[in-house]
Amino acid sequence: MTPLTVDAFLYGLGIAASVVCGATGVLEAGRKQVDLFGAITAGVAASLGGGTLRDLLLDRQVFWIADQAYLTATILAAIFTFFLARRWTVPGKLFLIPDAIGLALFTVVGTQVGLQFGAPWLVASLMGVITAVFGGLLRDVLTNEVPLVFTSELYATAAWLGALALIALQALGLDPVSAGFIAMGVVFAVRLAAIRWKITLPRLTSGGNPPT
Amino acid sequence: MTPLTVDAFLYGLGIAASVVCGATGVLEAGRKQVDLFGAITAGVAASLGGGTLRDLLLDRQVFWIADQAYLTATILAAIFTFFLARRWTVPGKLFLIPDAIGLALFTVVGTQVGLQFGAPWLVASLMGVITAVFGGLLRDVLTNEVPLVFTSELYATAAWLGALALIALQALGLDPVSAGFIAMGVVFAVRLAAIRWKITLPRLTSGGNPPT
Amino acid sequence: MTPLTVDAFLYGLGIAASVVCGATGVLEAGRKQVDLFGAITAGVAASLGGGTLRDLLLDRQVFWIADQAYLTATILAAIFTFFLARRWTVPGKLFLIPDAIGLALFTVVGTQVGLQFGAPWLVASLMGVITAVFGGLLRDVLTNEVPLVFTSELYATAAWLGALALIALQALGLDPVSAGFIAMGVVFAVRLAAIRWKITLPRLTSGGNPPT
Repeated sequence: MTPLTVDAFLYGLGIAASVVCGATGVLEAGRKQVDLFGAITAGVAASLGGGTLRDLLLDRQVFWIADQAYLTATILAAIFTFFLARRWTVPGKLFLIPDAIGLALFTVVGTQVGLQFGAPWLVASLMGVITAVFGGLLRDVLTNEVPLVFTSELYATAAWLGALALIALQALGLDPVSAGFIAMGVVFAVRLAAIRWKITLPRLTSGGNPPT
Repeated sequence: MTPLTVDAFLYGLGIAASVVCGATGVLEAGRKQVDLFGAITAGVAASLGGGTLRDLLLDRQVFWIADQAYLTATILAAIFTFFLARRWTVPGKLFLIPDAIGLALFTVVGTQVGLQFGAPWLVASLMGVITAVFGGLLRDVLTNEVPLVFTSELYATAAWLGALALIALQALGLDPVSAGFIAMGVVFAVRLAAIRWKITLPRLTSGGNPPT
Repeated sequence: MTPLTVDAFLYGLGIAASVVCGATGVLEAGRKQVDLFGAITAGVAASLGGGTLRDLLLDRQVFWIADQAYLTATILAAIFTFFLARRWTVPGKLFLIPDAIGLALFTVVGTQVGLQFGAPWLVASLMGVITAVFGGLLRDVLTNEVPLVFTSELYATAAWLGALALIALQALGLDPVSAGFIAMGVVFAVRLAAIRWKITLPRLTSGGNPPT
């Protein structure tokens, strides 16, 4: 038996992911010369967007309305990042590290919520991918960037592999907390390896479909 | 009495529409050099987006969470289309045909769901338009295309005319299945005629509103 | 005691806001040469988008499905504006005035709905901001404009200050209708003053974050 209950584990992951994504939203919005409020909005969208869509789809109460801690943590992280980023230059590449951490954290939270809700495994793994990917997608659309999920090396794929690992490990008898840590490692390692060695899924060949 | 029950009819239409829109999503995403996962995401968005918004608005259970067949059919169609499109060049114009078929199928499904839910006729017809149009809109926004619904010849209008036909024919006593086939014909014919003869609704004259 | 009940006050504000935002949606879409149906869609998105998101998040019944008056008022306003805008040139700057009015009206409606729903004050004020801002954001994304909320002088901030004023004044014992009028004045005055004197929140300095 682990010293950590599953609920406390998921709660901690959720708060940590909110802080991290609140920061990445500000960093990305910051490149567009938005003001403080726009930056906070991008942080909140990145942080709460994925879980909100998951809860709407599952018809659960939206997690940050039930408990204000997520919203508070996100806004504080966004404000802190905003003033920090005005003083220190953040290299563009560095942005991909917290983004990958947020991806890993939210994959585990989202998948586990899906499982506890009784969703079948394919839907539960998709809930993990949605929770992990949709917030960043919203952040990218709001700031007029091409969404990372559409262009990047193994982004949603990394999340999906982590979600499947989480489900499979528990089916094999592992406790949710240990399975959660391993699954986070899977997402983070796959994503960083894909960035480092430019691993991509097959693409449609260029010129295959002329534009209409 | 028709040999086909209304529920079986709607179920068949829904699965067929999922397959068709899963394919159009991949074809459009394919022009942007996205990878396999991005293509599947665009297919899933095109296929399930409209019905998801309809179910959220009506506070029904989201249709593809209750029954995994829609999700499975969409993903299989998307993967099949992806590998097919890597081998054969799909002319851009051809894309508009399956898009029109998806529009016709989803209009009938969405409107009928709205009617069975007890929505008043104006809201029910709007549910048909939303189901038909929103998935493609999501696909277009995700792939950074100007949404077809905003620029194209009688797109939402075709869906709306079909939805009104479906409602009116049933009010006149026709059974839902026959009315559904006629309404699908209306959507498909109006849309293709509009493309063929460039029929459009009135536009604001150019220069009428200088940009701010 | 005021001669106006709170429910009648909120209903009147909601209908007025629907009319105003239905018009701004058409004016903005009109710059993109969309057709009548596209213009109506942009108007409906601007008008009903914010309240719809609020109702989905709070798990309330979506307001315009329960009562068709909002939808009817929006569509009539959009059609009227469309044909008016074909005859008279609307100067671009003028667009910002009805946009500010819609912002003020929806802030009060959204915040008050949040309070009556029993949401804590921070969430209630956010519901006001969401109701006020999300419709216009949707309108801007659909018409491929950079969202006003991200670039403009004190846009969401104006809404948030008004929401806080509404909550604080009622906590001090003022009746909701009087507090509502004052809060609308706050939003409108802050927004117009910010446009007039180019008041902005602090921004990230340019060059602080090189693009990836």
